[in-house]
Amino acid sequence: MTSYAADLEAVRAAARRIDGRAHRTPVVTCATLDRFAGRALFFKCEHLQKAGAFKFRGACNAVMKVAPEIAVRGVATHSSGNHAGALALAARLRGIPAHVVMPRNASPVKRRAVEEYGGRVVECEPTLEARERTAADVLAQTGATLIPPYNHPDVIAGQGTVALELLEQVPGLDAVIAPVGGGGLVSGICVALREAAPSVRMLAAEPAGADDAARSKAAGMLIPQTGPRTIADGLLTSLGDLTWPLIRDCVERIVTVTEDEIVAAMRLAWERAKLLIEPSAAVPLAAVLSGPFRRLDGLRRVGVVLSGGNVNLDSLPWK
Amino acid sequence: MTSYAADLEAVRAAARRIDGRAHRTPVVTCATLDRFAGRALFFKCEHLQKAGAFKFRGACNAVMKVAPEIAVRGVATHSSGNHAGALALAARLRGIPAHVVMPRNASPVKRRAVEEYGGRVVECEPTLEARERTAADVLAQTGATLIPPYNHPDVIAGQGTVALELLEQVPGLDAVIAPVGGGGLVSGICVALREAAPSVRMLAAEPAGADDAARSKAAGMLIPQTGPRTIADGLLTSLGDLTWPLIRDCVERIVTVTEDEIVAAMRLAWERAKLLIEPSAAVPLAAVLSGPFRRLDGLRRVGVVLSGGNVNLDSLPWK
Repeated sequence: MTSYAADLEAVRAAARRIDGRAHRTPVVTCATLDRFAGRALFFKCEHLQKAGAFKFRGACNAVMKVAPEIAVRGVATHSSGNHAGALALAARLRGIPAHVVMPRNASPVKRRAVEEYGGRVVECEPTLEARERTAADVLAQTGATLIPPYNHPDVIAGQGTVALELLEQVPGLDAVIAPVGGGGLVSGICVALREAAPSVRMLAAEPAGADDAARSKAAGMLIPQTGPRTIADGLLTSLGDLTWPLIRDCVERIVTVTEDEIVAAMRLAWERAKLLIEPSAAVPLAAVLSGPFRRLDGLRRVGVVLSGGNVNLDSLPWK
Repeated sequence: MTSYAADLEAVRAAARRIDGRAHRTPVVTCATLDRFAGRALFFKCEHLQKAGAFKFRGACNAVMKVAPEIAVRGVATHSSGNHAGALALAARLRGIPAHVVMPRNASPVKRRAVEEYGGRVVECEPTLEARERTAADVLAQTGATLIPPYNHPDVIAGQGTVALELLEQVPGLDAVIAPVGGGGLVSGICVALREAAPSVRMLAAEPAGADDAARSKAAGMLIPQTGPRTIADGLLTSLGDLTWPLIRDCVERIVTVTEDEIVAAMRLAWERAKLLIEPSAAVPLAAVLSGPFRRLDGLRRVGVVLSGGNVNLDSLPWK
């Protein structure tokens, strides 16, 4: 039997660890979107999670799990996205430092989020090499524990808690769909579903402009993302060696969507369902609204994970 | 003992009547907004209500309560706001016609909402006289039942259901604050609180540019609104003779806020809490964030009713 990065017991332990620290996010429904999708959709509102994204679950689980004598030296990561703010907040809740390596050209909004949560931003040049060297320097200087954004067992287990909640909140789900970037969210959900609810089908959604997961599935091997182009800035990264096996074995299908479909779905979510989601979170909604998905059978009740809501309100994609 | 337009039993009956038809909306919290307010806030998310506003509660209760032999002739109202869409949707759920008299210059978004829910829009000139004459004509021609936007016992009782849910969802509330326009929402909440939870203090929030409720309270008599000027387009109307007595007797204080405070609160709700609320719903948030409110004692846990989320996304107030 294949062994994966995490199992159901790890997800249950993560749920106990983050209980009272992370929000148990609500599930909402919208009759208009159900009509457009041709089925019942249950939106798991991770945009209402602390720090505005599901990322807080994994970061919180990983931060709380570090042994006390090591934790005092702090935690560190390199991220220009939602994981950065999530880690800074989790560290603040534990009362330890968070060092976040960010490229000089990172979004000012994301940078401010880290700083407002009390994290220390360490700037680097916007290259992979500079980022890794700077992160190594930070770890050497501080003795901090590295908490990567997705390719880590505790992060994967933390993200899986979203599925445990969804299963409790919505009886009789036929499937769950979530966006795939590095694969932390999808692989965490896979871990939970395969043991806790093996009859619930797992689907993933990806921008056509960053379709490494779809290509990897088709090839049967991990193909790194090169030159991604998408407005869904949370989904630019490649799968990791810990997330890929779960996606390979437990995801039934990866649906790709165009940029126009992502923007249209995001606007529909805002306008009709009043759900203030970011482009990455609109990707699974775009997928369930797409023609090919509408033709899939046996999916009467589908859980849609809205992964985050961190948007720059001064530059909306429909303006 | 003063007799009011509705009592707790009417609110409880409304709750049973709309159960399974209206959403039981979630309550969410946001640590950042708590810090800004200096107390714990519990946001009752009526922007996630059907048709995007609390208005659906009252409209649904009133529509479902019409006797069957009369209901077949349909319902009617004059409204250019959220009540119009709410009534159209409630009528559709009952399978009866809804006739909505709207001024020629009503927002295209609100008009489209009525039409998409299957309502019939009857245009009139944008004057009070034309509106009343047109509504009278519609009633005479169709035999429809008039369901006004707020000054009606069944509408008030329906809006009160928001308080019953909030009391169940959040134990130990010290106060509830909601926006006041015509007063349907606030008076409905008063009806519920005064009998079900008399120790919970009732507060209301109003734009300084449409402060008829604050002026009426100060004068001890109903003073109609003239020439309102505010971005909070749900709060332009005057109190009614059914809503005023409850506001006079059961609301402890009416907090007024400026236009700048409303826009800033709306942006904070979007940016920090990912709550896609309309300007009228930002009014109570602006109130709890204001200096005078922050100095009030004994308000550790405050329920804030976010009344609606119907916003024109092409013209946001910070652009």
